[in-house]
Amino acid sequence: MDQKKITFADIAKYTNFSKTTISRYFNDPDSLTVKNQEIIAQALEDLNYQENKLAKIFANGKSEFVGIIIPNLYMHYYAEMLNQILNTYDEFGYKFLIFTSKHDVEADRKYLQELLAYRIEGMIILSHTIGSQELAACGIPIVAIEREDAYINSVNTDNYMGAVQGTSLLIKNHCDVLIHINSQVAENVPSYGRIRGFLDTCKERQIKHELILQDLGHSPQEINACMQQLFAYITHKYPNVKKGLFLSNDTHANTMLNIIFRKYGTLPDEFRLIGFDDSPVSGQAILPISTIGQQIDKIAHEAMSLLVTLMDERKKRRPKPQTALVHKNITPVLIRRETTD
Amino acid sequence: MDQKKITFADIAKYTNFSKTTISRYFNDPDSLTVKNQEIIAQALEDLNYQENKLAKIFANGKSEFVGIIIPNLYMHYYAEMLNQILNTYDEFGYKFLIFTSKHDVEADRKYLQELLAYRIEGMIILSHTIGSQELAACGIPIVAIEREDAYINSVNTDNYMGAVQGTSLLIKNHCDVLIHINSQVAENVPSYGRIRGFLDTCKERQIKHELILQDLGHSPQEINACMQQLFAYITHKYPNVKKGLFLSNDTHANTMLNIIFRKYGTLPDEFRLIGFDDSPVSGQAILPISTIGQQIDKIAHEAMSLLVTLMDERKKRRPKPQTALVHKNITPVLIRRETTD
Repeated sequence: MDQKKITFADIAKYTNFSKTTISRYFNDPDSLTVKNQEIIAQALEDLNYQENKLAKIFANGKSEFVGIIIPNLYMHYYAEMLNQILNTYDEFGYKFLIFTSKHDVEADRKYLQELLAYRIEGMIILSHTIGSQELAACGIPIVAIEREDAYINSVNTDNYMGAVQGTSLLIKNHCDVLIHINSQVAENVPSYGRIRGFLDTCKERQIKHELILQDLGHSPQEINACMQQLFAYITHKYPNVKKGLFLSNDTHANTMLNIIFRKYGTLPDEFRLIGFDDSPVSGQAILPISTIGQQIDKIAHEAMSLLVTLMDERKKRRPKPQTALVHKNITPVLIRRETTD
Repeated sequence: MDQKKITFADIAKYTNFSKTTISRYFNDPDSLTVKNQEIIAQALEDLNYQENKLAKIFANGKSEFVGIIIPNLYMHYYAEMLNQILNTYDEFGYKFLIFTSKHDVEADRKYLQELLAYRIEGMIILSHTIGSQELAACGIPIVAIEREDAYINSVNTDNYMGAVQGTSLLIKNHCDVLIHINSQVAENVPSYGRIRGFLDTCKERQIKHELILQDLGHSPQEINACMQQLFAYITHKYPNVKKGLFLSNDTHANTMLNIIFRKYGTLPDEFRLIGFDDSPVSGQAILPISTIGQQIDKIAHEAMSLLVTLMDERKKRRPKPQTALVHKNITPVLIRRETTD
């Protein structure tokens, strides 16, 4: 069943060139005339030659591999990000070696070593386990997405701006009190911007508000129990006023909406609600949920584009060391659906 | 910023072994005594040696790469399948080179060539574009998941059994008429078993039924419009009887449930409803939806396990050619939630 392996010797014999010339065709084609390049290309076709990229990498040291460590593919955000990163192959030609994090720093270090052993030229990292200072010491270009990035380059959603947009919409909807529900996010991760954006907007607009930060559970059952409790707390504390709820993601927003809808058979005017992410659940909910859409395609493209620039610099005869880290923010998009006016 | 590259010569000097001995350590370690292996391993640690797997592959031809072509990562089913395949790294050690299909046979052929150029040892294919006869001609072991598989090995959900389980539950719920809604599935793809399983069960149990096969749209808006139409058709044709709806997937089931729930403020007794896949939307719906759960973890593991057996055979001095294709079925699991009794 194996294809017959065509060797450089076979190609040399077929074309009457030397093996050295054939080798130069693969490793430094521009050192041959265009005519000779064409003769060899035709021979490869005639002989049904199967290129061996690994041999080429071995010769010139350029693997064309980019490593990725991603927390999971269960959350749509990560699955779609990986999808968009893979799609950059058509533009940039890099192939991806991918590991999903075990949320364990030792396991992730092992993955990192494996990636380095395969001579990846650069890395995109979304997993949180390994600190950015340790990553920076790997000696290859790295771009982080939505994680701590003090010592490495990054491309993130402008979380602060997203929160300002969402909070402003709830104010425009004449809500009397605004409530932001989130988990206890560390201040050094990009998504902390959602909390800052909410607080700054409420203070600037002098509107009554409450920030609820707590563990919101992981399983659907846990999330549902938390949201039930919070719903009881909110309706008890703020009766007969219009409540604007800003949830930290669409899964939480959907759970809260279901609780309200099952109780009232509709979303009453005294509740307005907005999520974050524009994940599929926001469009598939009992009422389509207003949300802040992350431009995942743009984030993925910017991350790869930045990484390619850094990797290209490394291939120059005298690469310039990177003097300042790049941190790019991509503006999110406010998506108005049926849970806001 | 580059790490200092440690060469075989450095290791030889440090250990007082020859370069040939060092090379044998990497390519055929068992040809050395255990003691000498330990000395070299210690030296690698002392010298902070960064293994070059590409060099090793180049020497022994075993890339430890498995290629994957997957239709998309937008659908949770594919994202979770990829997740589970990636997770087999810890058990089998194979790394994955992944392409998402462009749903265009020429583009997918290009990806296939790229994978072969990187000397993948085997492939798992979920994309539909390239026929199995053409794939079989690649000359490497291939395992298909949920696609046409006449000429290649495959691991699939037992779609027929899943449909029998779902249909039987609706009969047990005393539905007067059963309706299966699906798109026009080709008879040679595994999921056609859902249609056969529904029809066979209804005929055997002599229950009134209708099979609706039509284009159900792709965007949420299109799916919603189709389901609105079907809901009107069904309620008009079957008034005052208990209707058991078996939808081909959970996204469709969720859309239908939302239409019913928005109209009645609940799921009335005259409707029972079941989906397929156990995708997240089934648990996050306004009422948790009963469904047929595909054991994605088992499918991924069986596919990789079969592929590893085939790849291992290839590495033997005298590999036995595969005499008969393997087609494995994994039994799905009936998940009873709130849309059935």
